[in-house]
Amino acid sequence: MMHAAGDVRVERVPDARLMAPTDALVTVTRASVCGSDLWPFRDMARTEKGRRMGHEAIGVVEAVGSEVRRIKAGDFVIMPFAFSDGTCAFCHEGLNTSCIHGGFFGTDAVPGAQAEAVRVPHADGTLYALPGRTDEALLASLLTLSDVMGTGHHAALSARVGPGKTAAIIGDGAVGLCGVIAAKRLGSERIILLGRHPDRIALARQFGATDVASERGDEAIAQVRELTGGMGAHSVLECVGTSEAMLTAVSIARAGGAVGRVGVPHYESIQGSALAFYANITVGGGPAPARAYIEELLPDVLEGRIHPGLVFDRTVDLEGVPDGYRAMNERAAIKVMVKP
Amino acid sequence: MMHAAGDVRVERVPDARLMAPTDALVTVTRASVCGSDLWPFRDMARTEKGRRMGHEAIGVVEAVGSEVRRIKAGDFVIMPFAFSDGTCAFCHEGLNTSCIHGGFFGTDAVPGAQAEAVRVPHADGTLYALPGRTDEALLASLLTLSDVMGTGHHAALSARVGPGKTAAIIGDGAVGLCGVIAAKRLGSERIILLGRHPDRIALARQFGATDVASERGDEAIAQVRELTGGMGAHSVLECVGTSEAMLTAVSIARAGGAVGRVGVPHYESIQGSALAFYANITVGGGPAPARAYIEELLPDVLEGRIHPGLVFDRTVDLEGVPDGYRAMNERAAIKVMVKP
Repeated sequence: MMHAAGDVRVERVPDARLMAPTDALVTVTRASVCGSDLWPFRDMARTEKGRRMGHEAIGVVEAVGSEVRRIKAGDFVIMPFAFSDGTCAFCHEGLNTSCIHGGFFGTDAVPGAQAEAVRVPHADGTLYALPGRTDEALLASLLTLSDVMGTGHHAALSARVGPGKTAAIIGDGAVGLCGVIAAKRLGSERIILLGRHPDRIALARQFGATDVASERGDEAIAQVRELTGGMGAHSVLECVGTSEAMLTAVSIARAGGAVGRVGVPHYESIQGSALAFYANITVGGGPAPARAYIEELLPDVLEGRIHPGLVFDRTVDLEGVPDGYRAMNERAAIKVMVKP
Repeated sequence: MMHAAGDVRVERVPDARLMAPTDALVTVTRASVCGSDLWPFRDMARTEKGRRMGHEAIGVVEAVGSEVRRIKAGDFVIMPFAFSDGTCAFCHEGLNTSCIHGGFFGTDAVPGAQAEAVRVPHADGTLYALPGRTDEALLASLLTLSDVMGTGHHAALSARVGPGKTAAIIGDGAVGLCGVIAAKRLGSERIILLGRHPDRIALARQFGATDVASERGDEAIAQVRELTGGMGAHSVLECVGTSEAMLTAVSIARAGGAVGRVGVPHYESIQGSALAFYANITVGGGPAPARAYIEELLPDVLEGRIHPGLVFDRTVDLEGVPDGYRAMNERAAIKVMVKP
């Protein structure tokens, strides 16, 4: 329960239970703390009721409502960070985050997954049931398909990553690191990470980053320009969400290139408008339709071609969640896994 | 010569002449006043030397420099609004407006085409020589390939217009009207024009607009939402260049849709950042690589499938250019053709 910025507590709450006939009740096997959880951890005003946090989880279906057809009790499932009915026009287009009956976990109406169990609306549309048995060693990577790996993939697609192109990734958090995996996976030959933490840079190199720019602002821009023969990067993955990061993103993009932004925007408007215009730079991105990407990313996880689970460098039980927030906020951990 | 906002004069200037061995000298058959010329007409500070305006023209090559290989004296050519060498990486990618040796007409270094003759840098890369004889009746439409039709096409491509999709065009100026042509040409089934001038709306309908929204701001947004069953338009062509128009563009776009902006931006930053983010709306566009589009658009002009020349509703000689600016600025003319 988050009560205010910096105030996360472990509390006993009423058991999650089925409320609508399309719900499923899922026992959480693993959950995690998201970089986006750190925004309220820094600035949330104190509330009476508190907020039950968490939107990334894998788990086992305990029960399903009377109208659930596809998902069954006993299924081992990935729960993407947004729920969606799977049937509307947007879901059919693969944009589940714009589902007309959809929404996000971690609200009053749909409490979060940093818990023993979670109620999942529109279970048939939302949940992805994994085939066969589950290897314990794969849990961490499977968990990333609920959000962070899907989000890195979305950044890469929005930035139009492709073979022969240079990708630059702004941010060495878990999303940025998954952005490196995604850029590599989609054929980028040159992958420049903009980050400054040695442990994260090491992991980025393991994931396929070929270059690192560790300065900030104008110096980072100069570094990337130098690395790209003055041209800039075809694809820029903006994985931070600040106005400065967006301006850097536009500034390091190559003419005709694209910026894919997935960092939850903490800015009113997009700077660098004229810069982007005169160089025909496209700005895209948003909340990743993680549900839609599982189908494509899962085989690579199951067959060991990508290892996004390595972004988890700390595991806590429910009692340890408050410490997990603090560790991520202080950059002492890249990403924290919760094992209830 | 523009000396200041509102102050356009016809003056005798030194004859245009070859300066670099890659130049061509072109006698102007037709030029035109561009909507973008109206920005300085409204806000240019007074200058000592004045500015020789004009960046849209068709004409006949009088002479070429010693290193010009492809273009020959006597060629009838289209002069796109930007010059480009045709050989750099960006030109090869079809983004001539980012040519590393390129630039724009109407500056001190490269005076404009609202004149009897114009010096064209990088003639081989810049000019498009028309095949065969020229039908007088086609001159107006051929002239639009130097800018306005290419710009409408660029807006449509940047907005990802396509079959089965709904396109909305913001602005009923010549670019917006060419945007209607482009949207229709690329298969849009529903084309909504946001404009308020009856004569322009009539022309838009002739070009293929199926619906019109004549309100502004929030009411225009409500109109488009209503016309699209609450969803918004897949493709929004922003052909104005104000902050309000951009915010309207983002506000009427469908989730997952795209805004193609081609109006020269008179705003510091792009509003509606959060709106665009949560709905995964892409913002693209910039100066159109008109040179690159001639190849694709020309057959449709020559064979009479599109008639973008209809955007010209007034023709002046050189003496009439100042009046032409005034007429366009007062919305008494859609677009003015100059016949030296």
